[in-house]
Amino acid sequence: MNPPYLLGVLGGMGPLATVDFMHKLLLATPAVNDQQQIPVVAWNVPQIADRQRALAGKGPSPLPQLLQALNKLTEAGASHIAIPCNTAHHWYDALAAASAVPVLHIVETTLSALETLTERPKHVGLIATQGTLDAGWYQQGLTKLGISPVLPTAKEMDEWFVPGCYAVKRDERVQAGELLLRQALALQERGAQILILACTEVPLALQAVDTSSLTPTLDPATLLAERCSQLWQAQHPF
Amino acid sequence: MNPPYLLGVLGGMGPLATVDFMHKLLLATPAVNDQQQIPVVAWNVPQIADRQRALAGKGPSPLPQLLQALNKLTEAGASHIAIPCNTAHHWYDALAAASAVPVLHIVETTLSALETLTERPKHVGLIATQGTLDAGWYQQGLTKLGISPVLPTAKEMDEWFVPGCYAVKRDERVQAGELLLRQALALQERGAQILILACTEVPLALQAVDTSSLTPTLDPATLLAERCSQLWQAQHPF
Repeated sequence: MNPPYLLGVLGGMGPLATVDFMHKLLLATPAVNDQQQIPVVAWNVPQIADRQRALAGKGPSPLPQLLQALNKLTEAGASHIAIPCNTAHHWYDALAAASAVPVLHIVETTLSALETLTERPKHVGLIATQGTLDAGWYQQGLTKLGISPVLPTAKEMDEWFVPGCYAVKRDERVQAGELLLRQALALQERGAQILILACTEVPLALQAVDTSSLTPTLDPATLLAERCSQLWQAQHPF
Repeated sequence: MNPPYLLGVLGGMGPLATVDFMHKLLLATPAVNDQQQIPVVAWNVPQIADRQRALAGKGPSPLPQLLQALNKLTEAGASHIAIPCNTAHHWYDALAAASAVPVLHIVETTLSALETLTERPKHVGLIATQGTLDAGWYQQGLTKLGISPVLPTAKEMDEWFVPGCYAVKRDERVQAGELLLRQALALQERGAQILILACTEVPLALQAVDTSSLTPTLDPATLLAERCSQLWQAQHPF
């Protein structure tokens, strides 16, 4: 028999994105009382080495702290682990290898959702950290689906994405939203029919501004939350 | 030397109120990057006996599950515990006695905030579960401060508070807000100059409706979050 379902959220990257993910878990579950809601233990400790800086060779690796957090969650009884941070999936293989329980993969979940679309787009834009872009997971997955990825330029990353992302971390969401909206519109102008918001800070920023001119978006954090909730609902039918 | 600060959030009562509290913790901390934010481990497991039903003698006590959650959090390294649920403070003494680390008290935190107001109101309304009202903590504290509490009637509890509270748990926040707004306005009409939203579901509901006709409110969840953040900031000056 499987152990009871308890989702371990390996968070803190950033802390607001983790809280947003926990909210998305609740929205993904059609509960009519508290007891039907998804059970969660969350590690929202943001004193973890900066992922973007680590991958740029400018700071220490967050892996030791990620492993420690994973242990805390499994010791507390987590039956599954979710990581609401795309960039942190750079260390996914090491985490999955060290984990006694399944670790869900935010990129695979997102690509599966794209695969099931009845009308598959030809061009999909990717708003992500340099670390996520360099890893190439989304681009490879899109290419396999016959979709060509539309990527930010180096200049756009410097002027819009990076400052927008760090503005969310200061809770300056309107400023962040304006910067990331420009990034999104630039990808759209280059042909993106759908935009993957492949950094969990991005939807938080875009919520703060008028996105009515924007093409449809896919939010990996929402898709990951829905996957986690499906696993819970399968063990606890209601 | 004190152990490093790590806030343990004993949550799940309800799960949305816990997520809201975690958001309030971030808002209470003037961080300019992830690393300055308050570190949190949260137990958001809503499969816990219904507090209102237990206190009405209609269901089992949540105390065994509260103690288990407390242990999980302290085993994970929590240096302080916060419980974003007023009603659960019925079991505060048992939890504080069993805990190796300090457990903050949502009612004491709220009464301290009222005490520091420069113009202390004469009449304060209390929106709370029957369990919180029966416990009498807020009423006793208010009376000591020379403030007379304005309480809901039994009819108002049945028609407005209880269905409003359970509507939040179904995420029907507009319906919840309309019911709880009526409750709030009734207390205001009976003289309340300030309203204490002494159930962590209530601010979530009132956010969903137009409260411009409402007298000022005090949100114990926000005050508790601010207290937790002050403790963090004292250990980690920035």
